[in-house]
Amino acid sequence: MFDNSETTGLSHLGEFGLIDHLTKNIELKQAGSLKGIGDDAAVLDFANKKVLVSTDMLLEGIHFDLAYTPFKHLGYKAIQVNLSDVYAMNGTPTQVTVSIGVSSKFPLEAIEELYQGIHIACEKYNVDLIGGDTSASKQGLVISVTVLGEADEKDIVYRNGAQEGDLLCVSGDLGGAYVGLQLLEREKLVYLENPKIQPDLEGKDYIVERQLKPDARKDVVELLKAWGVTPTSMIDVSDGLASEVLHICKQSDKGVQLYEEKIPIDPMTYETAREFGLDPTICALSGGEDYELLFTVKQADHDKIKHHPDISIIGYMTEASAGCNLVSKSGNVHKLTAQGWNAFKA
Amino acid sequence: MFDNSETTGLSHLGEFGLIDHLTKNIELKQAGSLKGIGDDAAVLDFANKKVLVSTDMLLEGIHFDLAYTPFKHLGYKAIQVNLSDVYAMNGTPTQVTVSIGVSSKFPLEAIEELYQGIHIACEKYNVDLIGGDTSASKQGLVISVTVLGEADEKDIVYRNGAQEGDLLCVSGDLGGAYVGLQLLEREKLVYLENPKIQPDLEGKDYIVERQLKPDARKDVVELLKAWGVTPTSMIDVSDGLASEVLHICKQSDKGVQLYEEKIPIDPMTYETAREFGLDPTICALSGGEDYELLFTVKQADHDKIKHHPDISIIGYMTEASAGCNLVSKSGNVHKLTAQGWNAFKA
Repeated sequence: MFDNSETTGLSHLGEFGLIDHLTKNIELKQAGSLKGIGDDAAVLDFANKKVLVSTDMLLEGIHFDLAYTPFKHLGYKAIQVNLSDVYAMNGTPTQVTVSIGVSSKFPLEAIEELYQGIHIACEKYNVDLIGGDTSASKQGLVISVTVLGEADEKDIVYRNGAQEGDLLCVSGDLGGAYVGLQLLEREKLVYLENPKIQPDLEGKDYIVERQLKPDARKDVVELLKAWGVTPTSMIDVSDGLASEVLHICKQSDKGVQLYEEKIPIDPMTYETAREFGLDPTICALSGGEDYELLFTVKQADHDKIKHHPDISIIGYMTEASAGCNLVSKSGNVHKLTAQGWNAFKA
Repeated sequence: MFDNSETTGLSHLGEFGLIDHLTKNIELKQAGSLKGIGDDAAVLDFANKKVLVSTDMLLEGIHFDLAYTPFKHLGYKAIQVNLSDVYAMNGTPTQVTVSIGVSSKFPLEAIEELYQGIHIACEKYNVDLIGGDTSASKQGLVISVTVLGEADEKDIVYRNGAQEGDLLCVSGDLGGAYVGLQLLEREKLVYLENPKIQPDLEGKDYIVERQLKPDARKDVVELLKAWGVTPTSMIDVSDGLASEVLHICKQSDKGVQLYEEKIPIDPMTYETAREFGLDPTICALSGGEDYELLFTVKQADHDKIKHHPDISIIGYMTEASAGCNLVSKSGNVHKLTAQGWNAFKA
């Protein structure tokens, strides 16, 4: 991706030089960010708000493949997957720390692009980059992000608040990120077999972007707030719909009826899944990485959300003894199981 | 280290299983830890305190060598190096998140020992483990820790507050962690050449522990508080005394006179450095990883600290134009330079 003859090596900058170089233009925008990078610790003021903390690590070869992942997208995604966890608590992300371990095989320009993506994501979501750690790595690229956010205690939504009869809802559409990954993996194999063949991703932008450049659903949290709807439980869809539904059921001690025909799947996801011989519903249930919000609301809120094109009501909560069920398009009832992302890889 | 025939593979547990297994017995002790592991984010209450945040990543082959680092020590150290950053702000650490990337080549028992070390450190310092991420790794062991702490705004000590005439002080002794590392590296080479020879570390416990199992200086922060001494600036010694002194000088816009003869070096560090043909002063100045506290106090506080055996006054701050100087034992004045840890490795 980078012609090393025209690039800058990391080794001559050293660790301090690299941190300085990557963070010199940071402006803190949150009033609560009293001190950012440059001391032993950042200093933050959350006033009367509760503090939300989540962390996610991305490892080369496990979570991303640099053969088809642009550094800028990777930086952007590393931030988004963390922001998504704060939105899933019905909170507002305010700060992030970013630690990277980077092999000296990477040119400085690659790490600059990674940080460009990080900065773009922070700017777009009004989040301050307030700290981190930069280290050499003998083992490829490692990115660890911790996000801090805030919320009033009364607004925080956990996974365990779903009640019997609540409507199960999901934002956006599902399965796209997984099918996009299959596409990228296929084109990588084609390229490895014959480097003269250019990747054939034409017309597939949407699902490729779902995989490479997801956006945390800040808008959904804001919409619900504007409508006066507080979900009774919420979680983000990182491991696949089935896994997340089961988390809500288990932690709320409830069952669920989930309707296959209600699961939102984009036409391009559907069509491309079929091209790969995959069941689109399975891609949505077990694919993961969609970073949509899955939540439950009281039936009384039905009228407020029913007409929004970006929110789908996909089922309802039952008593725990009724079990966690998927009702297929043909009306058959199956026990819902979480295969998760790894099952596909096996 | 582990006989794989009697151990448990990680693969059958899966990611969720591993997290559950490692965190099932956690009890939250901080009143401010409202929700720990188990939702999209932890929920914390800092009441009227300011929040301190710092993060450090440890990578196999860069920051530690599993040939001579017991997993339990490694977990303990990963927490300590982070706590040290909060104490260096004159704050109190309250929570940590721990993300690990782990190759499936490690048996479950190894990761359990790592977490034992983490739990022991958390318990000892009254810090809650409130979140994290556990992932497969293709790249050896990766540990990323983020620490949160609290302080009243008036108590927070930055690097930039040193004034002309302030006394420069350091806790404990320096250079031991670096010399301990040389010893471990030597014994590793001996072992690789002849696996029948047992490591010869007899009588060297102190410096080996300085390297493998450092303790953050909570006690020093508490002592200063008890004496009514608020440092004007503070930093922890992770990269070597010279580097940290220069950080304080640069951020405070001051110069320094640092006296070689005042630098505290333990006799075992001194003697072992000599055995290796190393200058003990250079080990203290550039060795790093001692995790002592370097701080400046007003001259008026001299009487309060002068008799404590664990605090050394090693110099004083000057105006910036006087420069940053090291006064050698023979009275010669040298410009202080930071070679840092990497210089040793070159």
